[in-house]
Amino acid sequence: MVLDIGVVGAGIRGRMFAQALGQLPDVRVVGVADPTPAGAELAAELGAAAHAGHEDLLAAHDLAGVVVATPDFAHRDAAVAVARAGIGLLVEKPLATDVKQAREIEAAVEGGGGPAMVAFENRWNPRFVTVRRQITDGAVGDVLFQCAHLNDTRFVPERMLSWAARTTPAWFLMPHTVDLALWLSGRTPSSVYATGLRRELARDGIDTYDGVHALVTFDDGTTLALQSHWVLPESYPSVFDFRYELVGSRAAVRVDGSDEGVHFAGPSLQWLHHSTVERDGRLVGVAAEIARDFAGLLRGEPVTAPTLAEGVAVTAVVAAVHESVTSGQVVRL
Amino acid sequence: MVLDIGVVGAGIRGRMFAQALGQLPDVRVVGVADPTPAGAELAAELGAAAHAGHEDLLAAHDLAGVVVATPDFAHRDAAVAVARAGIGLLVEKPLATDVKQAREIEAAVEGGGGPAMVAFENRWNPRFVTVRRQITDGAVGDVLFQCAHLNDTRFVPERMLSWAARTTPAWFLMPHTVDLALWLSGRTPSSVYATGLRRELARDGIDTYDGVHALVTFDDGTTLALQSHWVLPESYPSVFDFRYELVGSRAAVRVDGSDEGVHFAGPSLQWLHHSTVERDGRLVGVAAEIARDFAGLLRGEPVTAPTLAEGVAVTAVVAAVHESVTSGQVVRL
Amino acid sequence: MVLDIGVVGAGIRGRMFAQALGQLPDVRVVGVADPTPAGAELAAELGAAAHAGHEDLLAAHDLAGVVVATPDFAHRDAAVAVARAGIGLLVEKPLATDVKQAREIEAAVEGGGGPAMVAFENRWNPRFVTVRRQITDGAVGDVLFQCAHLNDTRFVPERMLSWAARTTPAWFLMPHTVDLALWLSGRTPSSVYATGLRRELARDGIDTYDGVHALVTFDDGTTLALQSHWVLPESYPSVFDFRYELVGSRAAVRVDGSDEGVHFAGPSLQWLHHSTVERDGRLVGVAAEIARDFAGLLRGEPVTAPTLAEGVAVTAVVAAVHESVTSGQVVRL
Amino acid sequence: MVLDIGVVGAGIRGRMFAQALGQLPDVRVVGVADPTPAGAELAAELGAAAHAGHEDLLAAHDLAGVVVATPDFAHRDAAVAVARAGIGLLVEKPLATDVKQAREIEAAVEGGGGPAMVAFENRWNPRFVTVRRQITDGAVGDVLFQCAHLNDTRFVPERMLSWAARTTPAWFLMPHTVDLALWLSGRTPSSVYATGLRRELARDGIDTYDGVHALVTFDDGTTLALQSHWVLPESYPSVFDFRYELVGSRAAVRVDGSDEGVHFAGPSLQWLHHSTVERDGRLVGVAAEIARDFAGLLRGEPVTAPTLAEGVAVTAVVAAVHESVTSGQVVRL
Repeated sequence: MVLDIGVVGAGIRGRMFAQALGQLPDVRVVGVADPTPAGAELAAELGAAAHAGHEDLLAAHDLAGVVVATPDFAHRDAAVAVARAGIGLLVEKPLATDVKQAREIEAAVEGGGGPAMVAFENRWNPRFVTVRRQITDGAVGDVLFQCAHLNDTRFVPERMLSWAARTTPAWFLMPHTVDLALWLSGRTPSSVYATGLRRELARDGIDTYDGVHALVTFDDGTTLALQSHWVLPESYPSVFDFRYELVGSRAAVRVDGSDEGVHFAGPSLQWLHHSTVERDGRLVGVAAEIARDFAGLLRGEPVTAPTLAEGVAVTAVVAAVHESVTSGQVVRL
Repeated sequence: MVLDIGVVGAGIRGRMFAQALGQLPDVRVVGVADPTPAGAELAAELGAAAHAGHEDLLAAHDLAGVVVATPDFAHRDAAVAVARAGIGLLVEKPLATDVKQAREIEAAVEGGGGPAMVAFENRWNPRFVTVRRQITDGAVGDVLFQCAHLNDTRFVPERMLSWAARTTPAWFLMPHTVDLALWLSGRTPSSVYATGLRRELARDGIDTYDGVHALVTFDDGTTLALQSHWVLPESYPSVFDFRYELVGSRAAVRVDGSDEGVHFAGPSLQWLHHSTVERDGRLVGVAAEIARDFAGLLRGEPVTAPTLAEGVAVTAVVAAVHESVTSGQVVRL
Repeated sequence: MVLDIGVVGAGIRGRMFAQALGQLPDVRVVGVADPTPAGAELAAELGAAAHAGHEDLLAAHDLAGVVVATPDFAHRDAAVAVARAGIGLLVEKPLATDVKQAREIEAAVEGGGGPAMVAFENRWNPRFVTVRRQITDGAVGDVLFQCAHLNDTRFVPERMLSWAARTTPAWFLMPHTVDLALWLSGRTPSSVYATGLRRELARDGIDTYDGVHALVTFDDGTTLALQSHWVLPESYPSVFDFRYELVGSRAAVRVDGSDEGVHFAGPSLQWLHHSTVERDGRLVGVAAEIARDFAGLLRGEPVTAPTLAEGVAVTAVVAAVHESVTSGQVVRL
Repeated sequence: MVLDIGVVGAGIRGRMFAQALGQLPDVRVVGVADPTPAGAELAAELGAAAHAGHEDLLAAHDLAGVVVATPDFAHRDAAVAVARAGIGLLVEKPLATDVKQAREIEAAVEGGGGPAMVAFENRWNPRFVTVRRQITDGAVGDVLFQCAHLNDTRFVPERMLSWAARTTPAWFLMPHTVDLALWLSGRTPSSVYATGLRRELARDGIDTYDGVHALVTFDDGTTLALQSHWVLPESYPSVFDFRYELVGSRAAVRVDGSDEGVHFAGPSLQWLHHSTVERDGRLVGVAAEIARDFAGLLRGEPVTAPTLAEGVAVTAVVAAVHESVTSGQVVRL
């Protein structure tokens, strides 16, 4: 059975998923929906049709699955349309930047009856697969404290994203770390306190937070500390700074995802990333595994992937972070 | 001029200061006040007199200075007595574990007119001296975000401290990191939110927190994230885990004080510490420099050392951390 | 087309390749040759036939390919038999521990006409794929200096390998690093000088070198420094210590393959490895990619894999290392 | 007793020693010999007399001690004159870049009868003081393998040293690592094999080696691997790259001296060094301790400092490194 796939959003992530899906046996990317020149370009590369929006994409093809990789705040319309049609859905994280929209997508998936997953990519990252195994094997004991830093250099809000002022570092970065913490600890968040600073980027004309600190308390009294800012100097050797720590009753774990062990001192110092690499013209690694599992999901195979309910839970925590920053109060979930 | 010095408290820190002071030219440690066998032992080693308490110590000698290195919660009586007598005072951190007591000591120093300092040792740590220089030189710009982790392995509450249940990891550890953050950033804290977990150690019969997370907001809207727990497994290669991070508008700085670059894989893996070492039978490094500056202070030389007012400010923040943990509310300072 | 595969040698590596091959679509592991109980056990797990040796295996099945994963010094007989029969061959590194035997295998492959590859696994390691890309892109410039450390803890010679006394740390470890250096630099070695220490393990009844240091000079005058010993204390957080460094005219590169960024402080400190992990019951990562490429090779697809000629070249360098250790002289290649 | 000190050579090291000596109680730097403007400048800063050469310096003052900190290859004349006069001598490493000259200095010291020491600064570095303590305590067991990398960025030969073409990276850097290895292991070297590359810097008009690899074998059959080059890109976060490793029969030790735990991401990434820092206008750390011990030596106090015989031994090894590079042969010592 050949699976025909459509992609909505031809940015960095849409392109990556399209390439990873297209290299699978019996999978074809047949249409790309993106009104910008990047959309036509990606479609041409893939030998797929270019469409202005998801409506045209859905009308033009009989699709098995659709990847929604639009900007953070623009997932809802495409995702709901795909889901209602019963077509398989892969939504880039965060599911939505608003709890109401996240629930609409969830409801559409339930109504449409098709399979769906959220691309929280750390679930496929071998580092965290390994940590998760230790936890499920009991080697960590009870999770007592978690701490997750996910920061970006100024390159991201200033030059990579055209839409930085329409999101925040919390929406752009914390879905990764909140999902990771919920998945690894298995706990339910009960309250959030957070602070945010809006100064440097706003001065430079990008009206968003420089960064946010948050403390999430779980129902068992344990706490997760979060930091996400995007004002690291560009001299930092990685475009992102990603560290996760966990203290359990039987073991403590630290994961560094930004320094992947390849230090390259060229014109500047860089930590070369390699969680997804190209080998013999083919993507290997995290992106390839996500694509493989999405295809498996579309074929009805048993696949472990982040659910829409998990996507809603993450959105709820990050929404509470924003509410706390604004109110200065502890927000109960 | 020979300086006669007394030491109150013959634990790890009292012993270290005594040794470092005793090796200075024209400085003598003449008396040790500690009712335990450790007191008599240290006195014998130093050729000093042993006393049961600070009252006897002060009565028996004409002292230029006294080191107060009793347990965290037991500084007040000795410090006030020394200060009122106009004798120079070196108080181990924290100044006190109660704002009222901290202010009593501060008032006694003002009344007595003698010199005084708090042994926030990071002020002498070459790592932080170097960071501070970058800040005062303007290379860091405005401080935007700070994060400080200072944790201990279970060895500390379970086997090193006999009085762990009478303090908390916040009182034992955060004075270091709070002082560091206030000193480096030069900011005034305005509010505190904190969470604490009381589970593992309490189950084992040591009735105190396992650890505390806190967010301190400063008057300029910037934030400091703090973590201090003491439940790291003993397999951690250092008895403490100490990391400080700062993001400024012009530079980001990270300091690791637990991995000092000497990895020793013997029966277990250890990161050997060397901020104070013994060479040719003499202490060299941080402890020696603190001792040198205390002697300088006693001689009226210009010395840059942490003041009693700074000690009070640190105690106020850590007290607010405890208040927030208890109330679940944001505490205004 | 379904590929029937045989495996010779049911140790750690044979098992890993068998599992990775068996999970591929249209690939079956049909026979395992190993006279020990491990052979029967692996065969049973895979639903394959158990055989005492490669002769029986070859006689019993019509095989598309065979994995030879016997101990280092025991590759020749099976590899030659497989190759002569024109069956596809995957040989675990080193190709052989003797240049003559390596050339016999190479000749058998040429004679038999089947495809063949050597499992120098670093060729598939994303770290080195990334470094290689920088080199072929010209970002590194000319390679000037290389240094490769690959060491093991005493666990390997003392408890993991039953046949440690029949090999050396140079034969067991240096094929990895020599292949890596030849592949990345593209240079031809011209001379070798090496030293070896035979003391600690010999005292403990394992009559082999504790370790070997070597300097390999290439035809362009550049040098590679090698270190391989297997007497690291077991407290080292990884069973192997693997570091590769390269200084080029335009960039310097450092790769750490032993600390993969997951620090686990449980009963002891461990750096958890994850270059191959199990996810949803399936191997993902390096082993899966090698298996995939071996299947591709058997199907005649264009695959980039280490050749027999490269296997011979590596064996020649490591043989020269041993010759230099014994003679105390520089050995010309 | 006030000690009058002279300094020969007003470069980076001469200046550092002068400052560190001048801040000691009862020590005065009274004369600086250096024909360049740097000499007059340093003398003026210190309130000392400026001299064209060591002859004038010695004639003009009644000196207790002299620091010889001329370029590597220019120690002999000044050191011999100082030593013959029975004046205390502190020679910067290496003692000389020629065994004959090293022995002349040693003989002059013996003849003159004054105290002397070589400034192998790692002997005072707290990292190595700590490692040495483990060795002397027996925690390391027998030393089996050593490896020492000391490299510089191109800044050093291209812009820092005016005399790079008159020395080599082996003479400039290996004295540090050879001394360290001899001191820590207590072994006597018996043979040396080394390779050198002369390409990149020579092309750029600086006619010296880019770098040198060496293997030193000791009388007990153990080996030391050395690497010293000075062609690291300037993007490397430290001007030097300094790593020392030791594998013993009971423990393995790794020391990193280039990353001292303070990471500063400003215009570029830098690892800020702090083995010697300025605090309250005073040098603290390694340089201060060397100065203190030189003053102690001049006063006849018991001081543990590197001897002239050790300086000769180090020069002999580094001379053999050069001989081996030139001859391509193993050199017996």
